[in-house]
Parts: sequence; structure tokens; C-alpha cells
Amino acid sequence: MRNLRFALLALLSMSAFVARAEFLNKEQQQQLTSLQETAIQSDLAYDILESLTTEVGARMIGTKGDQRAIAWSQAKMKALEFDKVWTEEVTHYQWIRGDVEAKVLAPFPQPVVAIALGESVGTGEQGIQAEVVHFNDFDALKAAEAGSLTGKIAFVSYRMERHITGKGYGKAVGARVSGAQVAAEKGAIAFMMRSVGTDDNRAGHTGITRYKDGVKRIAAVALSNPDADMLVNQFKRNKPVEFFLKVTAVRNEKVAVKGANVIGEITGSQYPEQIVALGAHLDSWDVGTGAVDDGLGMAMMMAATSHISNLPERPKRTIRVILFAGEEVGLLGAKEYVNVHKDKLKNHVIAAEWDFGLGRIYEFKTGVGAEALAGVREFAQQLAPLGVSFNPVNNAQGQSDMSLVTKEGVPAARFAPDGSTYFDVHHTMNDTLDKVNPDDLRQNTAVYTMFAYFAAQTGIDFRK
Amino acid sequence: MRNLRFALLALLSMSAFVARAEFLNKEQQQQLTSLQETAIQSDLAYDILESLTTEVGARMIGTKGDQRAIAWSQAKMKALEFDKVWTEEVTHYQWIRGDVEAKVLAPFPQPVVAIALGESVGTGEQGIQAEVVHFNDFDALKAAEAGSLTGKIAFVSYRMERHITGKGYGKAVGARVSGAQVAAEKGAIAFMMRSVGTDDNRAGHTGITRYKDGVKRIAAVALSNPDADMLVNQFKRNKPVEFFLKVTAVRNEKVAVKGANVIGEITGSQYPEQIVALGAHLDSWDVGTGAVDDGLGMAMMMAATSHISNLPERPKRTIRVILFAGEEVGLLGAKEYVNVHKDKLKNHVIAAEWDFGLGRIYEFKTGVGAEALAGVREFAQQLAPLGVSFNPVNNAQGQSDMSLVTKEGVPAARFAPDGSTYFDVHHTMNDTLDKVNPDDLRQNTAVYTMFAYFAAQTGIDFRK
Ligand SMILES: [Zn+2]
Ligand SMILES: [Zn+2]
Ligand SMILES: [Zn+2]
Ligand SMILES: [Zn+2]
Repeated sequence: MRNLRFALLALLSMSAFVARAEFLNKEQQQQLTSLQETAIQSDLAYDILESLTTEVGARMIGTKGDQRAIAWSQAKMKALEFDKVWTEEVTHYQWIRGDVEAKVLAPFPQPVVAIALGESVGTGEQGIQAEVVHFNDFDALKAAEAGSLTGKIAFVSYRMERHITGKGYGKAVGARVSGAQVAAEKGAIAFMMRSVGTDDNRAGHTGITRYKDGVKRIAAVALSNPDADMLVNQFKRNKPVEFFLKVTAVRNEKVAVKGANVIGEITGSQYPEQIVALGAHLDSWDVGTGAVDDGLGMAMMMAATSHISNLPERPKRTIRVILFAGEEVGLLGAKEYVNVHKDKLKNHVIAAEWDFGLGRIYEFKTGVGAEALAGVREFAQQLAPLGVSFNPVNNAQGQSDMSLVTKEGVPAARFAPDGSTYFDVHHTMNDTLDKVNPDDLRQNTAVYTMFAYFAAQTGIDFRK
Repeated sequence: MRNLRFALLALLSMSAFVARAEFLNKEQQQQLTSLQETAIQSDLAYDILESLTTEVGARMIGTKGDQRAIAWSQAKMKALEFDKVWTEEVTHYQWIRGDVEAKVLAPFPQPVVAIALGESVGTGEQGIQAEVVHFNDFDALKAAEAGSLTGKIAFVSYRMERHITGKGYGKAVGARVSGAQVAAEKGAIAFMMRSVGTDDNRAGHTGITRYKDGVKRIAAVALSNPDADMLVNQFKRNKPVEFFLKVTAVRNEKVAVKGANVIGEITGSQYPEQIVALGAHLDSWDVGTGAVDDGLGMAMMMAATSHISNLPERPKRTIRVILFAGEEVGLLGAKEYVNVHKDKLKNHVIAAEWDFGLGRIYEFKTGVGAEALAGVREFAQQLAPLGVSFNPVNNAQGQSDMSLVTKEGVPAARFAPDGSTYFDVHHTMNDTLDKVNPDDLRQNTAVYTMFAYFAAQTGIDFRK
């Protein structure tokens, strides 16, 4: 009985081996191994990132930094000998961060480090002096009675939880996006929150906030975690907390600014019209050098494509790198891309992005047709030596910008990296090159390089 | 033979036991064990620190924060039922930090996070625009030719090394203290350095800088580590680095400000004139809440003394807590103390301070008379359960403020804590309560509590 079982297992293994040869021929397997070795030994992605963070730095849409990033990206793709490089323009309105002055006046005077949330309005030059009302989380603020915050500043102190998947972000970010409008509806004259971040540095985490038509627009800021702790400790004394807040941000909806998707590709040798789409976003917030969000993604996609372009022959399909404009302020570049390329999305065979994480990829997931899954599984075995396991749930959607692309029916690939420390620096001034581990970046790049080659060179129809 | 060895060992153990009973009687041993248990279970030190950082915060000499800290310290000592509490005034001149605006203009425009070194002069409102000259370390700056920096900004990029003992500080701090004068002697119009710190946060590390009579006083700033990295990367491009620096610091040597040592004690029951001196410094830099430097020390010394004051009887000798004024700007309070108490220092039986570290104490060292060492060894055995080993080298001097006290012949005790992460936050805005591990603080406080009791209750003459 036991021997029978072993025989069966042996048979299954053999059939697995046969299946393996079905989608990836020996040459392709060897090529994948060779690309893995190349990428794992290469400094290219790190060097691209060093160049971006040294020569460009912050690149919020509408700033000189963004303009420099657009020029830099095109120049870099050309230097890497991409076959085609072009831009597609997007427009937005102007927002100027200005400064924040924040301090507790009573019961215990203390300065407070805070940062304006993205696209917040200002308070005016005179600032606001008011009592602060403390809520443990956004739900508590939502539950506050109408009018109960009239003339006051609302403060939500919920702390984001650290997790390898970054799932704490979802529970915390609601207040950042909608806190100001909810507070204003109840009469608040400003909105403050504990930063959506897992660190203990005195650097606030910015990120987009949204206003609602018909509701007063009030200034919205995020306190650093240590400052939020200190403020909460003041509340423990059960005395009214009097606060001064001045935000000089300016939201100029009548002033147009421009950004651009920067797109580069290496043209497929057999099916040039079939596109393997690799995405990252070109813009960053204005406070760090955008090394992690999303310089990592830019560097990785450009380096992966370059490794493949160095092969003697172009793969069958085209590999296209799209550096999306204005992701931070509302997926502007992705919207534009889907709009401009609407008719050609059916020729986008699969899409993948990098816009999260700061460590090794541990999992690979797809959102493809049922038939295609066998080929994907075969490829996934090639990633195993890099510590990447395959999650067969097959419900992946595109990340970030690419979510709009896969919503249009384009199949998706998704790679999950360790995100434990990502929200220590996300949207802060501490998003700088030193946070990037070169070894992890090599692994990340190797994975995307292999994926792009697999998707471009094997003839799999990921829709089927 | 083997049995003989065992017999000998047994004899030695017995003699050790006899020796043990020589200085610490059974009651004292039990009392030490009991105090250890009390301190290890107590939140008192942490609560004191929470109170200081919430209700006072930053307390640079000459600021309102320092005045509040003086009032807070006296009130806290009284609340803890110290027998005597008083202040001894010191004076200093005024220094106002102002702001720093720093940016690379060319080859690649980027903003730079920098902080004025303590008591730096300003640049004037118009700021300075000049080429930066890069030195890998302070020695390289010292070796620069006379006049070679005329009209330029000197930049030293040496990075401090992390070590459990904090020994990297010694190699790095010279540039902070004397870099500006050395650069000015060679014609520089401003001095910039990589912060003396081991972190990768965009928060500069301040700390005192010194000018030299007859040498032009130039503005001196410290860049955060990520900013120093970025600037070094720009230098790798081998193009001239053009910089703008504006420092609005004001050094008003003609404006006097006041600080004070805050001193509290529990009076000895048998030898009230004999003082066990416990030190920490009351002032902090103005950028954090001084939780670590040196709120930890303040909290620890006050809590240790309070634990002992809760015993049914006062120990034989007086335990005096001295919270020194103006340590950061030149040991002002310590100088004043030695001056005022000159005649009574012979009655200071031993001195210990806490002004370094952010983790568990692992080593105990003394600087006492040869005869006293036997009693010290006996006590050291009581610390072993807390993970503290005894280093018998017996050459310890007082730390920080207490170095001036022990220079006058007062015996010293010194406890070495883990300092691996201390220079991540030292003299930065990130020196806040969240950096303190409550468990470590309990261990630290238990050690000082036991030490203070040992020194005050046993009759050992530490000078002999
Ligand atoms: Zn992003
Ligand atoms: Zn982002
Ligand atoms: Zn100190
Ligand atoms: Zn200090």
C-alpha cells in the first residue's frame, strides 16, 4: 500500500515534470536562470535609484522636481537603449505645501510637529486658536453629534498597526482621506490626526485628503507619532487642551499644472503589438526624495527591462514600462493611460506594478484565465530559489495605477514584498535612499525581470 | 586530588561567604533584595519621565521650558517627600536657535535638512551662497592648506560608528566642537558637518560648538545622515557643488539668562553630613522633549531616592539628588556646585550620574580606595541577578557633571548601560518618551536604588 502510494507520487512528479516542459521550453528555462543570475549580481536598479534620488529627488506633480523627473526618466530610458520612449501629458491644479506651525497652548505649552495632508487648504496667516476634541478613532469622530465640534479642532489619535502585508494602512487611511470633511460637517474648524505610519520619528506622514462639495473646507494636518503620544498624554490630565494651528498651504484650483506619463519599451520581435505592461509611478510627495515611494518601482521596472534588452534577441512580445504621472493625487496618469490606450488594452497581455514594500518578495499571485494558470505555475517554480512562493488563489488585480488597467480586463500579476517597515517612511521626509537594502532590491528586480521575460517570451494567452 | 580541589573550592566559597558578611549584614542584604523587587515592579521612574515630557518638554537653559523644568523638579521632589529641596542659580548668555534654510543649488538642486549647532552664530538674513568643499573627516579638514577655503563652505562627512559603549561619539564629536574654528582659520565662511549620530532620520543632531578668540565666528550646522549621504553622492559627480545656507541663530553674549541646579535630599539618620551624590542634568537641548538626554537620569535618580525614602527608616547617610543646570552648554551647574560646595566635597562619600544610554545596565565599575573595593565587590554580587557584572579595574571617574565632582577627589561609581541606540536620538527632535523602554528603565532604576542604599547604609569609607 505504502509502495503504491510512492509509485503514485513518483508518477505525479513525473507528470509535473512533463507539464513543466509544456509551457517553458529548455531554452526559456535556461534563459530565466541566466536572467536571475544577471539581476541578482547587478547594481543597475540601485544605481538608477541613486541617480534619481541624487539628481532629482522629490517630484510632486506640478513642481520643478516633477519636470526634472520627466526629463530624467526619458534620458535614463534612452541611455538604457529602450527602443521607444515617449510621454503622455496630464494636467492637474496647483497645490503649494507651505508650512505648519502647531503648538499646545494649555494646559502644558509644547510645540507639535505636524504636516499638511496633501491638497489641504490653509488656515490663513493668522492661524487658528481653539480647543481640541480628542477621538480615539475615526469611527468615534463619525459618531460625534452634529454641531458638537463647532469652533473646535477635531483630533483622531488612532495608531496604525504594523504588518508584513501593510494591511494596517487600510484601517488607518480613512481618516486621512475623509477626516476633514466629516469633522467639518460637525462644525470643526480644523482637523488633526495621528499620522498614518508605524514609526516613532517626528516626521508627519502626508497623503491626499479629500473635500466634499457643500461642506466647508478646513485645514487638515497629520501629527508625528511622538507628538500624537504627547498630545494624548496631555488629554489624560482631563483639562481643556487649547491649541494654535497655522497652515500656510495654498490650493489653487484655478492654476493648471502639467505632469506626464513617461513610457518606454523594448519592441517585441514577433508580436510587437502585444504588450507586457510594467508599472510604477513617477511622482512622489514633496517631502522625501521618493526613494521608496515609488523610486524603487521606477528603478526596478527600468532595470528589469534593461536586463532583458541585453539579451541577444528581443523577446516575442513588447515589454512596456509606464511611469505614471500624478498617482499620489488620484491616479491621474493611470486614468489618462486607460483613456488614451482604450482600444489597445485588449493587446495588453498582462500588467504588474510595484508600489508597496521595502523588502524581499515572498509571494506571487495572478489574476489570469483558468487555462493560463498551468503555465503560470510552471513559471512560479522558477521563482522558488528566490524565496517566492506561489499563491494559486488567482484573484489578483493590478496594484495602484495598474488597478485601472486590470479593471479593463487586462490580466494581472502581483508580487507581495515584505512591507513591515514600509509605513515607517511612507509619505515622509524620511523616504530616502538609505532605507533601501541593495540586496533586497536585487531580489525584487530579479523577480520582475524573470516575470517580464516569461510573459513576453512564452506564448501564453493570460486571458484564457 | 580531585576531592582535595573540591575541598579547597568549598573553603574558598565559605571564605567568600564570610567576606560577604563583613560589609553587608543580613538585614542589609535583605533590604537590597527587597528594594530590587520594589524598583523592578514600580512604574515610578517612567511616570516621572512621562510627567516631565508631557508637562515640560524641552528645557534649554535660558528658555521658558528650563524655568518650567526648575519649578516642576522642585514640585516633584516635594511630592515625593524629599526632606529638603532647594535651588542654586547659574547664569549664562542667551542663544536663540532660529531656523536653518539649506539647499544645494548645483549641480542638482535639492533641499537639505540641517540644524544649527549649539550656540552657533547666524549667517545674516541674506544667507550665504558659496561652493562647498568636501572633507571625509575632521583630520582632512585640519590638513587643508591655510587660505584654501577662502569664501567657501567646509563640509565634513565623517559618519559616527554605532557601538554598545557609545565610543564612536569620541571620534566624531571633535568636528562638532571645533570644526567651525578650524574651517574659519582656513578662510571658510560657514561650516557644515554630517550629524554626530547613528540613525537614518532626517533630523540633525545639535550639540555645543566652540569658537576661538581671534578667529572669525562662522555659522555651523549639522546635516542629517540621509542629507549628508545625498550631498556626498552629488560630490561623486565631480562637479562644483554650489550651496545656499541661511542660519538665523542669534548668540547674544550680552544678554544674561538664568538657570538653576535643583537639589533634593533625604537626610541621613546617623551621618546626615555625609552625602551620597546622585546626578543627572536638568537642561536639555531645545529640539526634543529631552526624554533620553537626560530625562531618564532625572527620573531614575528621583525614583531611586523615593524608593529608599519609603523604607521605615532613613539610611545612615544623606542621599542627595542633584539635577544640574546647563550641562549641555558647558557643565555650568556642575561648576557652580563644585564651587559652592567646595568645603563639603570631602563629605561627599561617593558620586554617580546617569547621562548616557538607552538600555539595560550591563556593567558596574568604581573609582574608590583599595580597601573599599572588598565591600564594593560584596555589593556587586547583589546586582548580578539584574544582569550587571562587576568590572574590577577601579579607575572610574564621574560621568558628565559628576566628572567635576570626582576630579575633586570624591570617589566614583559608574554604571554602563547599552548605548547602541542612544546616538540615534541624542540631541535631536526625536529624543522623546516613546524611545524609552519601561522595562529597561525599571532595571536601571533598580540598580541605582540598590547602589544608593548600599552607599548610604553601609559604613564603608570609599576613599580608603
Ligand atoms: Zn506610491
Ligand atoms: Zn504614495
Ligand atoms: Zn546629557
Ligand atoms: Zn546632551
